[in-house]
Amino acid sequence: MTHHRFHPTTYHNTIGSHAPVLHIASGDQVTTTTVDSGGADATGQQITPRGNPQTGPFYIDGAEPGDVLALRFDRIWPNRRVGWSGTLVASNAVEAGYLAEQAAKATLQTGRLPESPRGRWELDLDAGTATLAEPETALGHFTLPLAPMLGCFGVAPPGGQAISTATSATHGGNMDYRVFGTGVVIYFPVAVPGALLHVGDGHATQGDGEIVGTGIEISMDVTFTTWIHRKQQPITWPRAEDDTYLMAVGNVRPLDEALQHATTELLRWLQEDYGLDAIAASTLLGQCVRYDIGNVFDPAYTVVCKVEKRLLPKRG
Amino acid sequence: MTHHRFHPTTYHNTIGSHAPVLHIASGDQVTTTTVDSGGADATGQQITPRGNPQTGPFYIDGAEPGDVLALRFDRIWPNRRVGWSGTLVASNAVEAGYLAEQAAKATLQTGRLPESPRGRWELDLDAGTATLAEPETALGHFTLPLAPMLGCFGVAPPGGQAISTATSATHGGNMDYRVFGTGVVIYFPVAVPGALLHVGDGHATQGDGEIVGTGIEISMDVTFTTWIHRKQQPITWPRAEDDTYLMAVGNVRPLDEALQHATTELLRWLQEDYGLDAIAASTLLGQCVRYDIGNVFDPAYTVVCKVEKRLLPKRG
Amino acid sequence: MTHHRFHPTTYHNTIGSHAPVLHIASGDQVTTTTVDSGGADATGQQITPRGNPQTGPFYIDGAEPGDVLALRFDRIWPNRRVGWSGTLVASNAVEAGYLAEQAAKATLQTGRLPESPRGRWELDLDAGTATLAEPETALGHFTLPLAPMLGCFGVAPPGGQAISTATSATHGGNMDYRVFGTGVVIYFPVAVPGALLHVGDGHATQGDGEIVGTGIEISMDVTFTTWIHRKQQPITWPRAEDDTYLMAVGNVRPLDEALQHATTELLRWLQEDYGLDAIAASTLLGQCVRYDIGNVFDPAYTVVCKVEKRLLPKRG
Amino acid sequence: MTHHRFHPTTYHNTIGSHAPVLHIASGDQVTTTTVDSGGADATGQQITPRGNPQTGPFYIDGAEPGDVLALRFDRIWPNRRVGWSGTLVASNAVEAGYLAEQAAKATLQTGRLPESPRGRWELDLDAGTATLAEPETALGHFTLPLAPMLGCFGVAPPGGQAISTATSATHGGNMDYRVFGTGVVIYFPVAVPGALLHVGDGHATQGDGEIVGTGIEISMDVTFTTWIHRKQQPITWPRAEDDTYLMAVGNVRPLDEALQHATTELLRWLQEDYGLDAIAASTLLGQCVRYDIGNVFDPAYTVVCKVEKRLLPKRG
Repeated sequence: MTHHRFHPTTYHNTIGSHAPVLHIASGDQVTTTTVDSGGADATGQQITPRGNPQTGPFYIDGAEPGDVLALRFDRIWPNRRVGWSGTLVASNAVEAGYLAEQAAKATLQTGRLPESPRGRWELDLDAGTATLAEPETALGHFTLPLAPMLGCFGVAPPGGQAISTATSATHGGNMDYRVFGTGVVIYFPVAVPGALLHVGDGHATQGDGEIVGTGIEISMDVTFTTWIHRKQQPITWPRAEDDTYLMAVGNVRPLDEALQHATTELLRWLQEDYGLDAIAASTLLGQCVRYDIGNVFDPAYTVVCKVEKRLLPKRG
Repeated sequence: MTHHRFHPTTYHNTIGSHAPVLHIASGDQVTTTTVDSGGADATGQQITPRGNPQTGPFYIDGAEPGDVLALRFDRIWPNRRVGWSGTLVASNAVEAGYLAEQAAKATLQTGRLPESPRGRWELDLDAGTATLAEPETALGHFTLPLAPMLGCFGVAPPGGQAISTATSATHGGNMDYRVFGTGVVIYFPVAVPGALLHVGDGHATQGDGEIVGTGIEISMDVTFTTWIHRKQQPITWPRAEDDTYLMAVGNVRPLDEALQHATTELLRWLQEDYGLDAIAASTLLGQCVRYDIGNVFDPAYTVVCKVEKRLLPKRG
Repeated sequence: MTHHRFHPTTYHNTIGSHAPVLHIASGDQVTTTTVDSGGADATGQQITPRGNPQTGPFYIDGAEPGDVLALRFDRIWPNRRVGWSGTLVASNAVEAGYLAEQAAKATLQTGRLPESPRGRWELDLDAGTATLAEPETALGHFTLPLAPMLGCFGVAPPGGQAISTATSATHGGNMDYRVFGTGVVIYFPVAVPGALLHVGDGHATQGDGEIVGTGIEISMDVTFTTWIHRKQQPITWPRAEDDTYLMAVGNVRPLDEALQHATTELLRWLQEDYGLDAIAASTLLGQCVRYDIGNVFDPAYTVVCKVEKRLLPKRG
Repeated sequence: MTHHRFHPTTYHNTIGSHAPVLHIASGDQVTTTTVDSGGADATGQQITPRGNPQTGPFYIDGAEPGDVLALRFDRIWPNRRVGWSGTLVASNAVEAGYLAEQAAKATLQTGRLPESPRGRWELDLDAGTATLAEPETALGHFTLPLAPMLGCFGVAPPGGQAISTATSATHGGNMDYRVFGTGVVIYFPVAVPGALLHVGDGHATQGDGEIVGTGIEISMDVTFTTWIHRKQQPITWPRAEDDTYLMAVGNVRPLDEALQHATTELLRWLQEDYGLDAIAASTLLGQCVRYDIGNVFDPAYTVVCKVEKRLLPKRG
C-alpha cells in the first residue's frame, strides 16, 4: 500500500490508451492535481488546451479487461481561490425559444453556450464557501458551501477508441455528477490492461444537470486510492457507493435511455451481489428507488439510479 | 371558510368539464375520499371502473380562466389496511430486452405491464408502515414507512378536452410524483370557470419514476383547501411548494422535454415573483437546482425542477 | 351504397363522442366540405374557432369497438383559390438556438410558432398549382403542384376522451402526413359504437414534417367512402394503403417511439394478413422498409412505416 | 488527375488520425477494396477483426482543417457472391416488449441483436440481384435488386479522437444510409491535415433504418474521386448530392436531434450557396422537404434532410 505523489506535466483531452504517467499497485494511494476545465492550474494560468484536460493515465498493475477498477476519492479540494461558471441556462435545459432574446446572437455564432457574463466566484477555503463576486445581479454577493467533486474521469475505453473529454460512456468520462466527491467509491469496467485511469474537471460545487454548462470550475488537489476487483461477470456501466447509497450510472443521450441503462445496471447489481431475484429487486426499487440527473448539457447525458443501502439484505 | 364533507358516489376516468359535484368558495376546506387506481374503496371492493377514477369535480366559485388555483393537501391518509403494487420493472425503465425473459409472453399479449405476481402490502396505520405480505421473495416481510400521496389530480383542461386519467399535461393529471402528499401546495392554471378540481389515485408510498407501474395503490381519506390567485400573467405548468422547496412540473414525453418545461417554468417563477433577472436566476439554478423524476411509466412523463426556498430573496 | 351530400353547420375542436351529424351505412359515400385550420370556409371567411375544426362526426351504423373502420378518400380538392402557410421553420425542427435571431421575441411571447410573415398562396385549380404571392422572397413567384390532403381526421377515442385536434394518437387526429390524399384508404381502430368519423384540416400540399407548422392551409371539398371490417384481433394504430404501399402509422412524441409503434404495427399486419412469420417479416422489412415523417411539429409526432405491396405474398 | 490502385493489408476499427496508407492529390481517383462488416474479404475469409473494418486512411494532399472534402463514389460493386443479414428486427425499432418471445434469451445474454438465424443471400452480379438462400421462410427464395452502398466511411475527427466504427458523428462514420452508393457526392468537414479518408462496411442493399442491424453485408470493389473545397465558413455536418437531391446529414441519438441537425445544416446550405434568406429557405422546405432515416440501430442515429435540386435557384 504505497502512497504516490504525482506532479502532472502533460494532459489529455481524450480518454484513451495514452502512455501511462505512473504505474501503481492495487491498493495504492495517489495524491496529484488537476487543472480546471479551461486548462488553468493552481496559479490561475492556462497551461494546456481547454476542454476538461485529464491528469494521467495511471496504470494499475494487474488490471485486465473484465475486471472492475474501484476508485475511492479520499480528498478533493480546490487548490486556488477563484472559480468561474456560466450564468445563463443552456438551450438543452429550457423549452426551445425560451431565453432566446438574450441568447440569440451568441448561439447563432458560437454554438450552444449563450454569450453571457462569466461568473467569478471567490472561495474561502477555511470557511468552505464560494461567493459570487461578479457579475452584479439581484442575488448580491451570494454565498454557497463548497461541495468539491470531479466532473470528468474514467478509464480507457475498449477497441482503441480515444473518447473526447466533452462526453461520457461506459468508461466514465464527463459525467458531471455533483455527488462524485470525497468519500465516494466509483467502479469502472476495465477494458484495457492497466485500466488507464484519467482524472480532471474539478467543480467547487455544481447543481443537478449542469444546466449553465459548468459547475464552479476550479483546479483541485486530488487524493485517491484504487483497487482491482475480479468479477464473475463484467459490469457494463459505472457503479458507485457512498455511506448511504448504491448507485448505477447511465451515460447516453437522451435522458430516457440514460435512465434505462442506470436502472438495468442497478437491477443487475442487486441480483448479482445481494441475493435478490428479479421480483424482489423490482419490488424494492419500485417503492424506494431515487434518480439523480448528473448532466443534461454534454453530448451524452448522465442519470444515476440509486437505492439506500440500509434497505438491502447483506451483500452475498 | 367553510368546511365541507363530501361523500362521492360517481367517479370519472377523464379530467374534463364534467358536471360539478360540489360548489365551494375560495378558502374552503373539503374532506372526502378517493378510491384506489383499480376503483376499489375503503372496504376493498371495486365500485367503479379501473384507471385512476377521480372524485369530483369541485367547482371553486369565482375561478376564471387565467387564474391560479392553489390546492393544499391538509391530510392524505389511507382508509383501509391493504394496498397492492406491481412487482416487475416496466419496459419504459429498463434497457430494451432486459427482463425480457420474464416479461415476454405477457407483454406480447397484453401490453406494457409484464405479467408478474401482484404485490400485496399490509398497512399498520398506527405505526405508519406497510409490510410486503406477498409474494414471497428474498426481501422477506419487508417494511416501509408510509408516505401517502395522490398520483392523479388536476383541473379541467381548456378547449373542451377530456383527458384520460392515465396521462398528464399542463392541467395536472397522472403525475405520480411521490412528494405530492400532506402539506404540499400545488398551483394549477385555471382553464375553465370554476377550475373543476378532480382528485384520486392514492399511493401509500412510491419510488421515483413509478417504475413498476404503481406505488402501493390504496384508497384514501383526503382533506384539502383551495384558494384562487389572480396573476398578472397565467402560469403554464403546475407549480408547487412545501416548507423546503419551490417546484415546477413538466408533464410530457420524453424526459428531455419534461425537464425543459419544468426548468422554464421555474425560471419564470423566479423572475416574476422573486425579483431575479435571467442571469441571476440562471446563476442560482446552475449551482443549486435539483431535479426529481415523478414517473417514467405513464403516457406523459413527469419531471420536477426545484430549488430550496432558503436560497431565494424575499418574494416580491 | 347510398351517396350522401352533407353541408356542415357546426365544427369540433376535439375528436370525441360528440353528437353525430349523419348516420351512414357501411359502404356509403359522403360528399362534404371542411374549413381550413383557421376556421375559414370556401369564401375565405372565418366561421368557427381556429384549430383544425372538424366536420362531423359521422356515425357508421353497425360499427362496434374492436372493428376496423376503412376510410377511402375518393376526392380531396380545394374549394377556394387562396391558401396560407408558415414561413419560418419551427423550433422543433431546428437545432436549439438556430434561427433564434428571427424568432426570439415572438416565441418568448406567444409560444412555438415564430412570428414571421404569413405566406399567401394563389391556387390555379385548373392547372393544379399553387403560387407564392407573398411575402416577396428570393424564391420569386414560386409555383408548386397541388397535392391535396387532410392533416387531421380520425375516429372517437375510447374511454370518454375528447382529444384536441392539435394532436394525434391511436384514433388518428392531427397526423399531418402528406400522403393522406385522394385514393388512399386509411384503417382506424373503432373504439365507440358508430366509430364517429371526423374530418378536417386540408392542405393544398405539405412537406415532410410540417416543419413550418403548416402545409398550404385551405378549405376543401371532400368525398369519402367508409366500410366496417370485422377483425379477429383489433388493430392498435392506424393502417393505410394506396396502390403502391402498405403503411402503418405511429403517433406519439418523440420520433423514436413513433417509429417503434409504426414498425410494430406493420410487423403485425404482415404476420396477421400475409402469412409471414417474425423472421420472414423482419427479413423483408430489414432490406425493403421505408419510413416517412408525417409531422415533427404537433404535440404528438407522426412516423409512417411502409413497404411496397409488390414485394408481398398474396394476402391470406 | 492520377488514378491509383490500392490493395489494403491493414484495417481500422476506429476512424481517427491513423498513419496514412496512401497520399493522393485533390482530383485523384482511387480504386480499392473493402472487407465486409465482419472482416471477411472477397474470398469470404475473415482477415481482420469484425466491426466495420475500414480501408485507409487516405491522405489528401493540401487538405486543411476548415476545408471541405468532396468524395464521389464512382463505382461500388460487390466483389463476391454471398452476403449475409440479420433476420429479426432489433429492439431499437420496435415497441418495447414486442418480439420479446423470440428475442429474450439472446438479448439478455449478448446484447442488442436478438439471436436469430443469419440470413444468407446469393448474388447474381450479372443480373444485379440478391436472392435469400436461407433461412427457409414464407418468403421463399426472395429476390431483390442490388443497390450497393457503403455503410461506414468518413474523415478523421478533431481533437485527437478515435471514434468507433460502430457509430457516427460530424466526421461521418457508420451512417448506414442506403442512398450513399455509386454516383453520390458526399462533403465532409476536414478536421485534420490531409483529411484522412476511411471507407468500409459495404451493403449489397439496405432498408431504411437498418432495422435488422445489417444490410446485406458484403465485401466491395470501390472506386472514388476526392476534391478539396475551400469554404468561407466550415460546414458542420456531412452534406451530399446526387442528380436529384441536395442532402444534409445529422448523426446523433435520438432521432429528434438528428433531424434537427440535418434540417439546420440544409437551411444553412440554402442560405450560403443559393442566395436564399431564412424566410425563403423556410418557405421552400416547409412545403417541399423530404426526410430519410439512415439508421435507428447504431449508437448514433442518422437522419437525412433533402430537397429536390430542380426547385432551387442557380447556385450562387
